[in-house]
Amino acid sequence: MTVTLGVLAGPAQTPELADPQQPIARADDLGLGRGDGCFETCRVVLGPDGAAYVERLAEHLERLDASARAMDLPAPDPVRWAQLCALVVEAWTPPAAGEGALKLMLTRGVEGAGLPTSLALLSPIGAAPMRQRVTGVRVALLTSGRPSTAYADAPWLLGGVKSLSYGLNMAAMREAARRGDDDVILLSTDGLVLEAPTSTVLWFTGGVLATTPHAGSGILIGTTQRALFDAAVQAELPTAIRTARAEDLLGADGVWLASSVRGIAEVTHIDGTPVAMDSALTSKLRRLAGFDQPLA
Amino acid sequence: MTVTLGVLAGPAQTPELADPQQPIARADDLGLGRGDGCFETCRVVLGPDGAAYVERLAEHLERLDASARAMDLPAPDPVRWAQLCALVVEAWTPPAAGEGALKLMLTRGVEGAGLPTSLALLSPIGAAPMRQRVTGVRVALLTSGRPSTAYADAPWLLGGVKSLSYGLNMAAMREAARRGDDDVILLSTDGLVLEAPTSTVLWFTGGVLATTPHAGSGILIGTTQRALFDAAVQAELPTAIRTARAEDLLGADGVWLASSVRGIAEVTHIDGTPVAMDSALTSKLRRLAGFDQPLA
Repeated sequence: MTVTLGVLAGPAQTPELADPQQPIARADDLGLGRGDGCFETCRVVLGPDGAAYVERLAEHLERLDASARAMDLPAPDPVRWAQLCALVVEAWTPPAAGEGALKLMLTRGVEGAGLPTSLALLSPIGAAPMRQRVTGVRVALLTSGRPSTAYADAPWLLGGVKSLSYGLNMAAMREAARRGDDDVILLSTDGLVLEAPTSTVLWFTGGVLATTPHAGSGILIGTTQRALFDAAVQAELPTAIRTARAEDLLGADGVWLASSVRGIAEVTHIDGTPVAMDSALTSKLRRLAGFDQPLA
Repeated sequence: MTVTLGVLAGPAQTPELADPQQPIARADDLGLGRGDGCFETCRVVLGPDGAAYVERLAEHLERLDASARAMDLPAPDPVRWAQLCALVVEAWTPPAAGEGALKLMLTRGVEGAGLPTSLALLSPIGAAPMRQRVTGVRVALLTSGRPSTAYADAPWLLGGVKSLSYGLNMAAMREAARRGDDDVILLSTDGLVLEAPTSTVLWFTGGVLATTPHAGSGILIGTTQRALFDAAVQAELPTAIRTARAEDLLGADGVWLASSVRGIAEVTHIDGTPVAMDSALTSKLRRLAGFDQPLA
């Protein structure tokens, strides 16, 4: 099967396979009715031995745990979740490209039942992200409607939490499409660069690879960005965490969006204005982040 | 049955009953994975003839339609939805209190399938709202993290849209519980009173019943507030749409939260400070809003 689904079933939270074409969540599941839960999207790739595995699974499970704690959800058991992922990956038939997107979802479950809903859905990577690895992305700048400091003392705003309540992020993506763009960079009301709806913003200026600070700004720490920065430091490519404004991106030597599935996507235009591009550097960043497969 | 579920099934969107204890949404339903959809919560009551009906159904379906349009979802067919509601209400066994909460949910459906998921779930009203009709509510003031003008030119922020992405509202309610409160009044970063996570804020000052303006502020127009204000004008009780700050609520002659299921709940305390209460006026407002059943 090219789509496989697994669940942690019942009070014992036993990993089990399920039919992805059959319903799995009840109408009164708070994940469905309230967006009350959290998720992770991971890349599944083929290892040197030809067996599929989940890339950076430990980091994703750590972030799922952090999201769950911030939402007062029961902490996900990393052993159970790793077993669930292994079960799903093993049952999966990789497509020709050899890669998949694994979505882990944890909801508060049925109202009042006190048992979370835990799902792992593995699918081929969509056509758009595969294409955008090659073509890059045109981005629109949109306001997040919040000052960059909004989240500092307000944990109920769920800053840095990858919650299932992604409706606003999806609406921002639709607004970009309406403008002929592929993606979005969100700006705070005070004009600081925050993040993209499903990826982290990176830029290269003065020989330094930079991203935005997450403290207080509500930005999600990117697993791909973090892995890339770790590898960059090893490769003697300087990195920095810095605030930036739109003009800093427009004046940079390169801008990218980093995410687990699409990888390192070059930003080609910001609000229609071409951005400087450096294909050698893009190749290097892709390699450092583990996206060194030939571009499909 | 005291819980009944109906769905609009298949491409023909045929109203059908379903088992509320069985799963109804697939793992790849965007309502589940992205909070990508909208909803309404309506009250079901017994009419003079003893038959249950949905209160203000037309207004709720209009608001569902407005939410759907704002999210680029297929517009819900009001005739189909009315049939669905009738089917669910007819199959329902009202509890002793004779009231129910009907949740209408419309999601973007399975990714790529282009067919929305349409659900109507009818349940007894929970213990907390039933109790709070009598006891009133203690509220905490929490920031929404947005200025009061944030939504004016940013439709992607989904201001005034009752989206399924309610995770932040639920987190605010948990923060209130942590503080020993029952509910929340959200304030903009510039200190204006906005709304409660699932209800509209009302207050009475100088003989005028007031609520907050929704234009630009992202506030959802309350069906109960609107019905109450219509009835108040008929009863020669002056009403007004006004901005307010926390001190205006603390200095008012009464403060209430209005919503479809709980009705008109008296605010007893704001951040622990007692608020003026006028039980005769509360009774009048309840009667004007259609909540004139004896307090359970």
